[in-house]
Amino acid sequence: MSSKPAVSVIGLGEMGQALAGALLAAGHPTTVWNRSAEKGDALVARGAVRAGSVQEAVLAAPLVIACLLDHDTTYTVLEPAAEALRGRTLVNLANGTPDQARRAECWAEGLGAEYLDGGIMAIPSTVATPQAFVLYSGRERPFTAHRETLEALGGAVYLGADAGIASLYDLALLSAMDMMFHGFFHAVALATSHKEGSAGGVTELLVPWLSSMLQMLPSLAADVDADRESGAAPGFAQGLDVVLAGAHNMARAARDARVRADYFERSGADLEEQIAQGLTLFTAPEAVRRLRVNG
Amino acid sequence: MSSKPAVSVIGLGEMGQALAGALLAAGHPTTVWNRSAEKGDALVARGAVRAGSVQEAVLAAPLVIACLLDHDTTYTVLEPAAEALRGRTLVNLANGTPDQARRAECWAEGLGAEYLDGGIMAIPSTVATPQAFVLYSGRERPFTAHRETLEALGGAVYLGADAGIASLYDLALLSAMDMMFHGFFHAVALATSHKEGSAGGVTELLVPWLSSMLQMLPSLAADVDADRESGAAPGFAQGLDVVLAGAHNMARAARDARVRADYFERSGADLEEQIAQGLTLFTAPEAVRRLRVNG
Ligand SMILES: NC(=O)c1ccc[n+]([C@@H]2O[C@H](COP(=O)([O-])OP(=O)(O)OC[C@H]3O[C@@H](n4cnc5c(N)ncnc54)[C@H](OP(=O)(O)O)[C@@H]3O)[C@@H](O)[C@H]2O)c1
Ligand SMILES: NC(=O)c1ccc[n+]([C@@H]2O[C@H](COP(=O)([O-])OP(=O)(O)OC[C@H]3O[C@@H](n4cnc5c(N)ncnc54)[C@H](OP(=O)(O)O)[C@@H]3O)[C@@H](O)[C@H]2O)c1
Repeated sequence: MSSKPAVSVIGLGEMGQALAGALLAAGHPTTVWNRSAEKGDALVARGAVRAGSVQEAVLAAPLVIACLLDHDTTYTVLEPAAEALRGRTLVNLANGTPDQARRAECWAEGLGAEYLDGGIMAIPSTVATPQAFVLYSGRERPFTAHRETLEALGGAVYLGADAGIASLYDLALLSAMDMMFHGFFHAVALATSHKEGSAGGVTELLVPWLSSMLQMLPSLAADVDADRESGAAPGFAQGLDVVLAGAHNMARAARDARVRADYFERSGADLEEQIAQGLTLFTAPEAVRRLRVNG
Repeated sequence: MSSKPAVSVIGLGEMGQALAGALLAAGHPTTVWNRSAEKGDALVARGAVRAGSVQEAVLAAPLVIACLLDHDTTYTVLEPAAEALRGRTLVNLANGTPDQARRAECWAEGLGAEYLDGGIMAIPSTVATPQAFVLYSGRERPFTAHRETLEALGGAVYLGADAGIASLYDLALLSAMDMMFHGFFHAVALATSHKEGSAGGVTELLVPWLSSMLQMLPSLAADVDADRESGAAPGFAQGLDVVLAGAHNMARAARDARVRADYFERSGADLEEQIAQGLTLFTAPEAVRRLRVNG
């Protein structure tokens, strides 16, 4: 018999299967449930117990991890087992907004359950590898109580008592990833517009280039925090004229290659507006300020 | 006396100074010129020769490296020394478009000079470090002849005989970098909308997250190349419904945080259009196709 605490996993999509697999691999007695039951077959073959209902799954463990499409789906699936949640901890790993997380905490606590909201910083194939981590927020007690179990999924990062902050950081990281991928797709579209170009060829250059540029982010972040705290002048600044010339070239090259140029046209227009307003330097604090609405 | 070939550097902005400094450090007799002459003072103190005119700078070396704001500025600066370029190699490192590069090659060859177009994948502080590289294109002869000298600036990557392809790849890499930085600024704007949030805090999580996600790009690129070559099905695919739910959450969280949400609203609308068209999966080849105009 395993000495590790039992866990139930509700939702066996791509991600739920990876999470349940990681818990099994770490030696936790694992009960699983999914609307389409057959998605649990491989897990059952590896030792998971298949619950006949959501309620049965909830009753099987003190820690219930839900990983469904979104918050609405999570309520739909869990409502029939609401009573059973009393005295247990619900960890909700569906992607959602900070407001949804706060509402879910309120709902779960109203049922006498403890609640943690989480954001998974992994894809199914990297779950439980050293690069995977999961952001959590909500009351500290359930986090501390279940931390060891949660570590089976990837590094467990606790962000604070506001249930919404894990979602906020999760969506911040996903937003940045989304834009990085968009940039990658754009680079590939440009490169493959040339008869000598290939996606593999440009990517071989792009990965080291972006890796090297990633190293600049901590100092840019320090510029933003220093500006917010004391209005200190930023360490990094670039002439807006050089940045604008680059934006024009990026837009022009995209148009010539018959690739969508609207992103760079907008950013050129924004840079021209800054120059018209008398600014001369591109800095991180100013770039962040300009993303705020009425800010 | 140095045994290394002499080089002239025209344009001593942030980048030109870094390039001339790297050539000096590598032991090349280096002549410099800049419109605002005082920007050469530190280089002269380190052993550079200051030319009294652009023509004098060109005549001082078989290899002339120009690093000015843009192509228009490059013509303005070099026109008075056009005759002097005959028999020399001009390496133009100003950021520009593929068409501008092809036109510059034509102009230089018309004067009896050899021409290389280049794109610097570095910032001034990383020039001549192991992470720096410079993309070149144009005829192979001048590249081979000057390769050793050019390696003083950073890894020299030759992309082919079409003078425009270095610019195309340069702008592809810069476009991806620009979008990655935009994503970073957005993540910081979101995180700092929370009273417990900080730019440094979110960046500490963002750098490992993006580093880990960068590792996916080669397999996504392979999906794109396989699709172009043989129409093979992609290895990576994600349900459009999960991607759309994420896009909605990113837009919603941005609006709630009073951060510009237009990028995510557009991408949500685009995903809805794909679903309406009957698509069910997000794949890299499809993402690239959708960036093409009429493609
Ligand atoms: N995949 C990733 O890389 C990744 C990374 C980080 C976070 N996440 C998050 O993890 C969550 C799950 O993602 P996933 O990749 O596992 O998605 P998925 O493979 O599409 O799985 C979706 C899950 O939701 C269930 N579901 C959807 N609609 C339902 C309904 N009306 N009633 C009952 N169950 C319903 C599905 O059940 P059926 O099997 O019966 O359809 C399945 O269990 C999402 O919030 C996602 O954002 C995913
Ligand atoms: N900085 C980077 O991180 C970086 C990275 C990769 C590529 N690049 C590219 O390198 C090139 C130079 O960038 P930089 O950062 O060195 O810019 P910079 O510091 O603004 O320097 C601009 C250069 O152009 C000259 N110039 C501008 N207008 C002129 C005119 N009308 N007549 C004569 N000279 C003129 C300037 O001369 P004065 O000194 O007299 O004004 C200076 O030498 C750009 O194409 C840029 O895209 C820069």
